[in-house]
Amino acid sequence: MLKNNIKGKNNMETTSCINPNDVKIKIPTLVGLKKNQETTIVNVNGVEFGGSKVVIVAGPCAVESQEQLFETARSVEFNGANILRGGAFKPRSSPYSFQGLEEEGLKLLSQIRKETGLAVVTEAMDTRQIELVAGYADMIQIGSRNMQNFPLLKEAGMCGKPVLLKRGMMATIEEFLNAAEYVLHHGNDQVVLCERGIRSFETSTRNTLDLSAVPMLKNVTHLPVIVDPSHGTGVRWMVPAMAKAAVAVGADGLIMEVHYNPEEALCDGEQSLSLDEFENLMRELPKIANAVGRQI
Amino acid sequence: MLKNNIKGKNNMETTSCINPNDVKIKIPTLVGLKKNQETTIVNVNGVEFGGSKVVIVAGPCAVESQEQLFETARSVEFNGANILRGGAFKPRSSPYSFQGLEEEGLKLLSQIRKETGLAVVTEAMDTRQIELVAGYADMIQIGSRNMQNFPLLKEAGMCGKPVLLKRGMMATIEEFLNAAEYVLHHGNDQVVLCERGIRSFETSTRNTLDLSAVPMLKNVTHLPVIVDPSHGTGVRWMVPAMAKAAVAVGADGLIMEVHYNPEEALCDGEQSLSLDEFENLMRELPKIANAVGRQI
Amino acid sequence: MLKNNIKGKNNMETTSCINPNDVKIKIPTLVGLKKNQETTIVNVNGVEFGGSKVVIVAGPCAVESQEQLFETARSVEFNGANILRGGAFKPRSSPYSFQGLEEEGLKLLSQIRKETGLAVVTEAMDTRQIELVAGYADMIQIGSRNMQNFPLLKEAGMCGKPVLLKRGMMATIEEFLNAAEYVLHHGNDQVVLCERGIRSFETSTRNTLDLSAVPMLKNVTHLPVIVDPSHGTGVRWMVPAMAKAAVAVGADGLIMEVHYNPEEALCDGEQSLSLDEFENLMRELPKIANAVGRQI
Amino acid sequence: MLKNNIKGKNNMETTSCINPNDVKIKIPTLVGLKKNQETTIVNVNGVEFGGSKVVIVAGPCAVESQEQLFETARSVEFNGANILRGGAFKPRSSPYSFQGLEEEGLKLLSQIRKETGLAVVTEAMDTRQIELVAGYADMIQIGSRNMQNFPLLKEAGMCGKPVLLKRGMMATIEEFLNAAEYVLHHGNDQVVLCERGIRSFETSTRNTLDLSAVPMLKNVTHLPVIVDPSHGTGVRWMVPAMAKAAVAVGADGLIMEVHYNPEEALCDGEQSLSLDEFENLMRELPKIANAVGRQI
Repeated sequence: MLKNNIKGKNNMETTSCINPNDVKIKIPTLVGLKKNQETTIVNVNGVEFGGSKVVIVAGPCAVESQEQLFETARSVEFNGANILRGGAFKPRSSPYSFQGLEEEGLKLLSQIRKETGLAVVTEAMDTRQIELVAGYADMIQIGSRNMQNFPLLKEAGMCGKPVLLKRGMMATIEEFLNAAEYVLHHGNDQVVLCERGIRSFETSTRNTLDLSAVPMLKNVTHLPVIVDPSHGTGVRWMVPAMAKAAVAVGADGLIMEVHYNPEEALCDGEQSLSLDEFENLMRELPKIANAVGRQI
Repeated sequence: MLKNNIKGKNNMETTSCINPNDVKIKIPTLVGLKKNQETTIVNVNGVEFGGSKVVIVAGPCAVESQEQLFETARSVEFNGANILRGGAFKPRSSPYSFQGLEEEGLKLLSQIRKETGLAVVTEAMDTRQIELVAGYADMIQIGSRNMQNFPLLKEAGMCGKPVLLKRGMMATIEEFLNAAEYVLHHGNDQVVLCERGIRSFETSTRNTLDLSAVPMLKNVTHLPVIVDPSHGTGVRWMVPAMAKAAVAVGADGLIMEVHYNPEEALCDGEQSLSLDEFENLMRELPKIANAVGRQI
Repeated sequence: MLKNNIKGKNNMETTSCINPNDVKIKIPTLVGLKKNQETTIVNVNGVEFGGSKVVIVAGPCAVESQEQLFETARSVEFNGANILRGGAFKPRSSPYSFQGLEEEGLKLLSQIRKETGLAVVTEAMDTRQIELVAGYADMIQIGSRNMQNFPLLKEAGMCGKPVLLKRGMMATIEEFLNAAEYVLHHGNDQVVLCERGIRSFETSTRNTLDLSAVPMLKNVTHLPVIVDPSHGTGVRWMVPAMAKAAVAVGADGLIMEVHYNPEEALCDGEQSLSLDEFENLMRELPKIANAVGRQI
Repeated sequence: MLKNNIKGKNNMETTSCINPNDVKIKIPTLVGLKKNQETTIVNVNGVEFGGSKVVIVAGPCAVESQEQLFETARSVEFNGANILRGGAFKPRSSPYSFQGLEEEGLKLLSQIRKETGLAVVTEAMDTRQIELVAGYADMIQIGSRNMQNFPLLKEAGMCGKPVLLKRGMMATIEEFLNAAEYVLHHGNDQVVLCERGIRSFETSTRNTLDLSAVPMLKNVTHLPVIVDPSHGTGVRWMVPAMAKAAVAVGADGLIMEVHYNPEEALCDGEQSLSLDEFENLMRELPKIANAVGRQI
């Protein structure tokens, strides 16, 4: 069933799903929202994406050391985060940049999960890593640069763990939905979509966070949608404002980079919140959530 | 003083203003935020942009007829709008599209202002129109396509009325600030900046609303910043969600297209709220405003 | 006839012209290529755009002084340029940059035309300048930032001189054609289209020169199409390679910035060829022109 | 040596190579052009990229059948192509599109290589495929969507075959160079860079072919640079004009899609040349090559 389909052209199987607002996107079958369908609940070790609670995913860009990870994890847990993020395999533009602690990093994530009770999401970049990563993590992240890494998407469809799929920085909404369709088509409907900024001509921010992607996606798919204001801006002090906007626009969750010492981070320090900044933000966010009928 | 400066190269006069967050933008002198400076209050016939109240500007894309304008204006006023928008001179991509009622439209705007008490903002596209438009309107709009129409910016600087300056659809933040600098340099500091969507590769929306422009601008300039979710999305049903996000992110106001019969609009009907949709949105927005410490 | 048409929506009058290659662009009536129609010859004081000769337009970004203009003009004329460019009114991002010599610049252009025999093209930015500029110049340039300055396009349609219309940096091919349609609709079919680079995410060049615009435009319109590799790259040493590519792709002409002392230019020196560089390029270009069946 | 380097931040090892034109790109060490260095010759089974000959790579988007591949290959070989392209593993946006013949396709490529003498380039999408693909092909293609698939780049560095690296559709020149650096850093300096169009706002073409990337890259790297006008435009009738421009601008080769029956192609038929169209183009290209001092 999952074997390659050899078909003629024009065989894009588009959905019979509802699209009450008549968007000009071809919506693939499995990800498409059906009549009267609710948002799919994606359950990550007990944490539910897609319900009335806005899920908070926080943690460092990369796992760098036991101290860095554990201090950061304890703090974000104390301040209300639901899931811990942290990269063990890092996709870096330059081969000379820190590439991650690999399995050592996965082990650290696993240890602190036991201590804090936080579920863990971490990235897999290679089809050969999926099984290893799935053995340690509660949720597999497919990063922006791999959104159209189709063999990886197929493996993610067969890995048995929920998937966090980040939008490619150059991907249209239609391409994003089709990437998710690969995962569902290979047997896994536990997929959370993440808007994380697209590339535009503007250079004062690292990316342009496309918050309109949230209502657009929620109009056409039953999958939960979250927002990454850290990569979305690349600028630490902008993260709180954009996080609030993301909750107001209807996101089912947020994923944010937090570091116990951003100035010394090996990766993305300039967009990581300090522990205090995260704490302050977590005091503000529930007000916005309540204003749109949700909780944090 | 306002005569052309003939100077050598590298004479961009950048500001000595504060920029606590170390953004890599060259900020022009007059628009730059100075130490301890508050947001400038732009007063449009008694309506204040830049204070704790979020200003609501609403009305049709174009003034089409007395009935269309008056019914729409009465309804938005009743539901809490502070300022009426409506174009008498319309910048249309095609010469065969409706170009606006011109002075007749200005007269209608003036009449309904008297009846409703709403202040009026309308666009001027030509240096030769500025005086005429300023004679009828309370605020002159410079549209996206004219953001770098420098003679028009100079005239707007000398027109004696507050200016609503919309960001060009492919203008960087730095270019946007420099466009505003033209207006201030020619004598007018009553300028409101408006993010209205930038052009990206994404085609499911008309533009990509760059909400990160709001915190970015408010970090570097003392001018108020508002958001146009109608042009920013080009999609009617997305306007409420993006309006909420804009308030959450810290906008000083919203400008939205509202039409008493969007299906029959001569211009931009697909992005105009109906009267009922506007009414519903105006019931939701105060909750978000309160959640960020403001009022509507 | 030229009065604003007040019509209902959906009244874009698209062409019945041929479009043998089935491009998905709505082509406006007057600019659209008709069956068996040849490229329109645009005659600028005897220099013909649209024939078998590739027209060379060269000169400084801005007219800065008699010496600068005259030395540059004499040199480009000697090396084979057909038309002299040079701005008297300059659209500058910052109000503190050199804004041009205004009428004094027009007079200098007029003087050197008499001496060299070169036709002159220069920019008008304001409806109020059109008559003045048309009194001195052989061809009126509408710059990128004014491509959708519709009142200016209407005046250009009525000015009695050929028009050089530059593509906006954010303009689609369809918008570009509609901008030209404004000029034709107001009575002037002597319009040359100029691709000058669009804005993309790439930052190593000032713009991204879209050479595919040339065959695309020539497939759907009868207007001549030229290329500006100076603004298209913003990088002096890239101009010769891109100029060759433009001729190979089928452009009807080139417009290039040349300065007798680029390092001291008041405007765009980093993209201006020196006199020697222009001379060298003019020795190379005829080979490419011949290879595609044309002459320089 | 090839093990991950765990280093602190700010350790981008930039080159000491020459950059006579002072481009603001950080150029990685191994790909950077050194003083007096010539273009690296990349030898693909006797065909040399980077010399005075412009290399022609042609063939179908995907290997579909023996008949389709063999007829197309014989024809492009007869008309002067040097290398045969054809995908056995296809990265398709939708899981329901034709995904390629996999190893069966590789075998067909291998058979027709024997018959025609053409070298073969084909894509690998998965680290687990590299060894298989390298066993059949003379050159491994890394596609646009995998330009930042770092594990794949590392494997390509160790595969023992030359690599054709396509620019990501939203990759900056700097990111492109860093992707190549991964391959060189892992032991393989036989890398050809391919500009294949970037994503912009323009929708009349599939991508925007950035020909300025050719002189930009050749200014900073010793690697050969080729152009793909098929993906670069997505429009069959535009391919010849853009191919000519690519040769004029200095490309070291072209890669083009050719199909014996484009209307029936399972993939990218709308951008594939027919056999006749390719034949006609191959008669035109040598003239352009000669005009810039090269041969085909």
